[in-house]
Amino acid sequence: MKRSLGAATLSLPSPVWVIGSFDAQGRPNLMTVSWAGICCSDPPCVAISVRKNRLTHRNISTTGAFTVNVPGCRHLAQADLIGMVSGVVADKFATTGLTAVSSELVNAPYVQEFPLNLECRVLHSSDLGSHTQFIGLICDVKADEAVLGRQGVPLAGLVQPVLASAPERSYYTLGPQLVRTATAGKALQPDQPAV
Amino acid sequence: MKRSLGAATLSLPSPVWVIGSFDAQGRPNLMTVSWAGICCSDPPCVAISVRKNRLTHRNISTTGAFTVNVPGCRHLAQADLIGMVSGVVADKFATTGLTAVSSELVNAPYVQEFPLNLECRVLHSSDLGSHTQFIGLICDVKADEAVLGRQGVPLAGLVQPVLASAPERSYYTLGPQLVRTATAGKALQPDQPAV
Repeated sequence: MKRSLGAATLSLPSPVWVIGSFDAQGRPNLMTVSWAGICCSDPPCVAISVRKNRLTHRNISTTGAFTVNVPGCRHLAQADLIGMVSGVVADKFATTGLTAVSSELVNAPYVQEFPLNLECRVLHSSDLGSHTQFIGLICDVKADEAVLGRQGVPLAGLVQPVLASAPERSYYTLGPQLVRTATAGKALQPDQPAV
Repeated sequence: MKRSLGAATLSLPSPVWVIGSFDAQGRPNLMTVSWAGICCSDPPCVAISVRKNRLTHRNISTTGAFTVNVPGCRHLAQADLIGMVSGVVADKFATTGLTAVSSELVNAPYVQEFPLNLECRVLHSSDLGSHTQFIGLICDVKADEAVLGRQGVPLAGLVQPVLASAPERSYYTLGPQLVRTATAGKALQPDQPAV
């Protein structure tokens, strides 16, 4: 039986990503977002949505750049705090003890301690209402050696990303790996027509 | 030690959502996406990215509507198959045994068996390169009664959504609930200035 829940953002899961940006004076700031996701393969792009009254909104609008930093579960307290206080009143790098590294590719800082860092240059921005969506070209991905598998790609089991369930306002861990894509469906796959 | 992985979509995690659409003749189709996420709170909007050669791209461009259907882990084989075959050659509802329900709000079908369904009307579309990003206004959310908590919101532990690790091309489950947002960070929070 289906129940109607109204016009609301009641989907899940959402990522928990921390956005790095510089203000006009080069001071680094951080912000936690969940309204975000990869949005294009070629060129590689990521979309993040930011409320207009946020310092990060002003920073990205000024610099045209940001980083996406993926925290592991061990960084949950820091990622949560970054979402609780404004960079207008607190230096979030100082408060969390995290280290800002200036990207050599874009005008934004990334978080040294987080296992995955995407360095992004803004290609588009769209005013959607409460939020502006910034679409960033991923200029490079930096990863801790410790989270890379033998093929040189980051493994979710090592990154241990945090997830959000927005309807519950709660954090979750990632669970066990199931199967590779394009495997589980084979049992249901119809016979292919001869070509 | 950080390693540079180049300009690539090597972030995680990503959702595994199934998009429902009608073609010009009203035939329903399904497509699995991972380049997607909620993108605005007010109005409530969701963004999905679709390659231009996909039937779903043509359908959404024609009808101006789509649904986002969140599969549970028990629907993994169906969601995976939907990502493996084209709706041009296969009726994916027939192949998977899933049931198409015509939305009464938008011109798109949703999946009866999946626990969460977002009915969306296209507000914007952007050509980003390989993918077009469609931003849909969430007109209603339908949820199975069985996945709702006492406060009437969907619980991740009951929905049991599937996640994707794009770098590994693998599916994951959601793990245990950690804490509510704005709790874990309190231990690190600086004293608030008196107002």
